[in-house]
Amino acid sequence: MKVKGKHYRTVWMEGQSVFMIEQNKLPFTFEIVEYTDYKQVCNAIKTMVVRGAGAIGAAAGFAMAQAYLQGMNPEIAKQEINTTRPTARNLFYTTQKVFEAGLQSPAKAVKMAQFLADENVEQARSIGIIGSELFKSGARILTHCNAGWLGFVDYGSALAPVYVGQEQGKSFLVYADETRPRSQGARLTAWELSQAEIPHVIIPDNSAAYLMAKGMIDAVIVGADRIASNGDTANKIGTLEKAIAANYYKIPFYVAAPSSTFDLNCPDGESINIEQRTEEEVLYQTGPTKDGKMETILVCNPGSVALNPAFDVTPASLITRIITDKGILKPCKEEIFDRLENNK
Amino acid sequence: MKVKGKHYRTVWMEGQSVFMIEQNKLPFTFEIVEYTDYKQVCNAIKTMVVRGAGAIGAAAGFAMAQAYLQGMNPEIAKQEINTTRPTARNLFYTTQKVFEAGLQSPAKAVKMAQFLADENVEQARSIGIIGSELFKSGARILTHCNAGWLGFVDYGSALAPVYVGQEQGKSFLVYADETRPRSQGARLTAWELSQAEIPHVIIPDNSAAYLMAKGMIDAVIVGADRIASNGDTANKIGTLEKAIAANYYKIPFYVAAPSSTFDLNCPDGESINIEQRTEEEVLYQTGPTKDGKMETILVCNPGSVALNPAFDVTPASLITRIITDKGILKPCKEEIFDRLENNK
Repeated sequence: MKVKGKHYRTVWMEGQSVFMIEQNKLPFTFEIVEYTDYKQVCNAIKTMVVRGAGAIGAAAGFAMAQAYLQGMNPEIAKQEINTTRPTARNLFYTTQKVFEAGLQSPAKAVKMAQFLADENVEQARSIGIIGSELFKSGARILTHCNAGWLGFVDYGSALAPVYVGQEQGKSFLVYADETRPRSQGARLTAWELSQAEIPHVIIPDNSAAYLMAKGMIDAVIVGADRIASNGDTANKIGTLEKAIAANYYKIPFYVAAPSSTFDLNCPDGESINIEQRTEEEVLYQTGPTKDGKMETILVCNPGSVALNPAFDVTPASLITRIITDKGILKPCKEEIFDRLENNK
Repeated sequence: MKVKGKHYRTVWMEGQSVFMIEQNKLPFTFEIVEYTDYKQVCNAIKTMVVRGAGAIGAAAGFAMAQAYLQGMNPEIAKQEINTTRPTARNLFYTTQKVFEAGLQSPAKAVKMAQFLADENVEQARSIGIIGSELFKSGARILTHCNAGWLGFVDYGSALAPVYVGQEQGKSFLVYADETRPRSQGARLTAWELSQAEIPHVIIPDNSAAYLMAKGMIDAVIVGADRIASNGDTANKIGTLEKAIAANYYKIPFYVAAPSSTFDLNCPDGESINIEQRTEEEVLYQTGPTKDGKMETILVCNPGSVALNPAFDVTPASLITRIITDKGILKPCKEEIFDRLENNK
């Protein structure tokens, strides 16, 4: 997608360097960082310089390729990359693919990592084309967190139908959940939509059900970090609450994800490990003052503790359809296996 | 309740002055403000120096009495006080009562305002005594926003059963929803519970359903700003989402409120006017830096707009019981009229 008129991917590799958009500084500063060591990329994944299942996957693949180019022990590197974030399926998928390719030669590892990044872009495009058919022009769409192009290499998952729909001449109004504690909706989704000139409104996470009750939401569309073989979906904390509310108000609730997000070895949501992140993310917020100086402030009672589960699992029964690059799926084991396992 | 060992009410009147705890500065600074002019009190209600249905009601009553003492036109003063906040039922109730008493003499107005503040304390105590029977020791209770003693003159509504239960030797774990955008849960509820030494954990609003799914919540208890005669309840934005989630997980969902919060002339939630507040509350956050300097920072994409509905309406069908000073009520018209209208 374009930033101030120039096309960017979220993460890419040139020579031995991995480049990425520094997402922690968005939406206030647009900055590209360069890493020459795979350990730096691991740290970037951990500290969420890059975030979102698809972008993490591509970054992990590049890190694995970089480790080969650096002549590091690939087993140890794979282990290190795999422990950066515990929930995203794509991370393990791309790391393993690049690890296997690299057993032949470092060049093959790089080629595989590039292929997987390109594949991520193609999958996102396909999700956009397939998903846009579900939304009429004028649709008012609620989304949670950021599953836009910043969460992928390009295009995004949940927002891909919006971007493709816009190319087709449709107009949408997007409600972006703030998505506390890290506020990716208020910061990243709103920034992306601003860049694309798509009308959007930031809402506190608390107000989604109110908007649904008032008939202001036509559909909900979210991304996914991992989808179990029965359709249960792990995604950003709060997704579950929106799904329960949408179900209550009989509003379609869509999950959009590339086929690599499915973990067919995972029987159901119960088996998905949920990352618990530091309470600091809840207790403090960072942003610019009116003078443009970045400050970190305490937003909670001093001395109180906080819980910070990063994801939750939405049961398949609350999901209307899953929009994938392989088509629109019912969230059930039979259809998922039929379309993903038998159509490879 | 006690602050650092000394007993305080949230708002009180001495002579011609109205005193209140400056709640905008909590939890970082504990400060008492004094107002000698009812217009200052109106402004304090508007700017949320005092907030929470019960405390607003008492402050409004004192403001009305103050207007009489100042020799102002009582009709105009009543009008001004009534337009400070549009949703809270108690505000109109106490203003009208004090207005009527003042028609006899300013002293009668003061007496009525003091009586209503005392009545608020007694009602809150009763809610605590009646409500604590619902919660066993060890209960893990989720609450939203602040319906503790800061939202009342003393004791609170939603937290009254917790405080009374503690006096009875019970121990609870309270999960406090952050309650964006103004974060009254993370700031005020957590501060109150800290003062009372009650174990508590702040959670992002997004994570309530996750905790319910994990079996970590035994009951939800919230306050109310206005309850319609059919039991539909207006309360802080996000209450509706918690009620829908609790209903989905079959967890008891209690509303706690004094009988003055009921508006028997209001047939249902549809008729309750919902206050829309400024988007600035969503876009900016204020708090201390590590150096203790208060800063206001932007927490959203620069240039994006935000919606900020302050309340939502939870339908009676999602409410297990309403805990009042007149007993525990089923949220239905017959029981509400029977217990409140016929037991005056």
